[in-house]
Amino acid sequence: MTKVKVAIVGYGNIGKYSLQAVKAAQDLELVGVIRRAESLGKKSPELEGVKVVADIADLGKVDVAILALPSREIPNAAKSLIEKGICTVDSFDIHGNDILDLYKSLDAAGKKSGAKAIISAGWDPGTDSVIRTLLLAMAPKGISYTNFGPGMSMGHSVVARSKKGVKDALSMTIPLGTGVHRRDVYVQLEDGADFKTVEAAIKSDSYFCHDDTHVHQVANVNDLRDMGHGVLLERKGVSGETQNQRFQFTMQINNPALTGQVLASCARAVVKQQPGCYTLPQIPPFDLAGIELEEFILHTV
Amino acid sequence: MTKVKVAIVGYGNIGKYSLQAVKAAQDLELVGVIRRAESLGKKSPELEGVKVVADIADLGKVDVAILALPSREIPNAAKSLIEKGICTVDSFDIHGNDILDLYKSLDAAGKKSGAKAIISAGWDPGTDSVIRTLLLAMAPKGISYTNFGPGMSMGHSVVARSKKGVKDALSMTIPLGTGVHRRDVYVQLEDGADFKTVEAAIKSDSYFCHDDTHVHQVANVNDLRDMGHGVLLERKGVSGETQNQRFQFTMQINNPALTGQVLASCARAVVKQQPGCYTLPQIPPFDLAGIELEEFILHTV
Repeated sequence: MTKVKVAIVGYGNIGKYSLQAVKAAQDLELVGVIRRAESLGKKSPELEGVKVVADIADLGKVDVAILALPSREIPNAAKSLIEKGICTVDSFDIHGNDILDLYKSLDAAGKKSGAKAIISAGWDPGTDSVIRTLLLAMAPKGISYTNFGPGMSMGHSVVARSKKGVKDALSMTIPLGTGVHRRDVYVQLEDGADFKTVEAAIKSDSYFCHDDTHVHQVANVNDLRDMGHGVLLERKGVSGETQNQRFQFTMQINNPALTGQVLASCARAVVKQQPGCYTLPQIPPFDLAGIELEEFILHTV
Repeated sequence: MTKVKVAIVGYGNIGKYSLQAVKAAQDLELVGVIRRAESLGKKSPELEGVKVVADIADLGKVDVAILALPSREIPNAAKSLIEKGICTVDSFDIHGNDILDLYKSLDAAGKKSGAKAIISAGWDPGTDSVIRTLLLAMAPKGISYTNFGPGMSMGHSVVARSKKGVKDALSMTIPLGTGVHRRDVYVQLEDGADFKTVEAAIKSDSYFCHDDTHVHQVANVNDLRDMGHGVLLERKGVSGETQNQRFQFTMQINNPALTGQVLASCARAVVKQQPGCYTLPQIPPFDLAGIELEEFILHTV
């Protein structure tokens, strides 16, 4: 078996858990981790024996780069790699036109270079998107609700942490039912920072301004940190002319562990696609699972 | 928009509900229903204005045939259509080597004729298979349980009804938890038939012999008939190195209505594939949903 050569770009939470998932997969080979030049000296026991570099060119042949970066850094990083002919997978999570722009940019670049990209492939957007799509095929008329949490939103926490005067921050997503959420943001301030200014900066950010957001000042954010998360995805709809078809998907998971695993599974799948860009529901689910076809038909179908 | 021209082969429960789902889809065009010659005279108000024929050749151009037939009739019917260049979708539900044989037969025939087939595309096998596959990609190590019911199994009811001396039969699937089921078969006998003989014939059939099966004689099976069904699909597993990831999918549905809807959604998807045969997890879920790509990326992903 030729293994898929995988590099991990970025080594925060998602990078660390992606590394564990890549190492656990028999058909994936970890060729190295790309970190910022200033982080290269940092030692981590789990990186023992792993090549850590600042430039992906120093890793030799790479089939797929897992982009474990904040969403806002992904469009440039992904485009540059796709143009070099390296496939990418990411968990870009900014909805609306931003996803569509990323899709179009990478689709055009991939069709030119021959590389392939899977975008927005965490659990939401990602595996939840696959389930929402499947439910549309099962009951085309009706309403779906996605209820997140309670749990820490990593994307929102990163954004809150990026505000001036914030030393550390944690954003909790609280499900209020039928797709409505409250966001509770806990911030630990830098010395001399003004809470009201920080609160206003967070509440006006596009990540937060559409939700009921409450900002709380705490002495130590780290004491609140737990990576457990969950979702309840519901649809009530119509199959053909038959009303009242009911569907629920729910999970209780370690958030970055699941994101890292989905990214690793996508690293396996992306090389099997035609050049261009894909969201997760545009990929055959079978390509994500590392199973031989006959075995799969006999035991999973 | 060029509509996909769909014919429905067979007009039992699945055929009737498939017809409703095809009619409800704006991108599908019902070109006709194929029934046995002896059933052509039967009038049904919902077939008013629908072409009903005994031979698919009498319908003119057909892109996709939905095979609403008992599983045991599907391999021959599908192969004959695929050889004629007509795509097929079916809900073949006999697990093990039978699915694999059907897959291989239609894959070879399709690659020769240019036609495409989606097999075993109801809800189980079918959409449940997609979810089982997705859960394998989310937590590669662990155990999945599929708990069916309580509900009537159409496939098992057809088999029970086919036994000599049985006038009517209904097979209920009772979930006992962690993937274990009991089958309660209710039979209404022909005059003079022997219950013990019927019971033995049912219990020894390959559809029933692997489960704890109880056969009950009743005066009127029709009084017990309700097409509600359900499933609880559970997985507890490991993402990367992280244990105790928990996933549940559950639904409460009208069984033939969901099967008919999935078949109609597959009729839309099958024409988009390359020649050959596919199980449902080998198809991009996006192809099943009748949504334009940009709209989909903006509002479903």
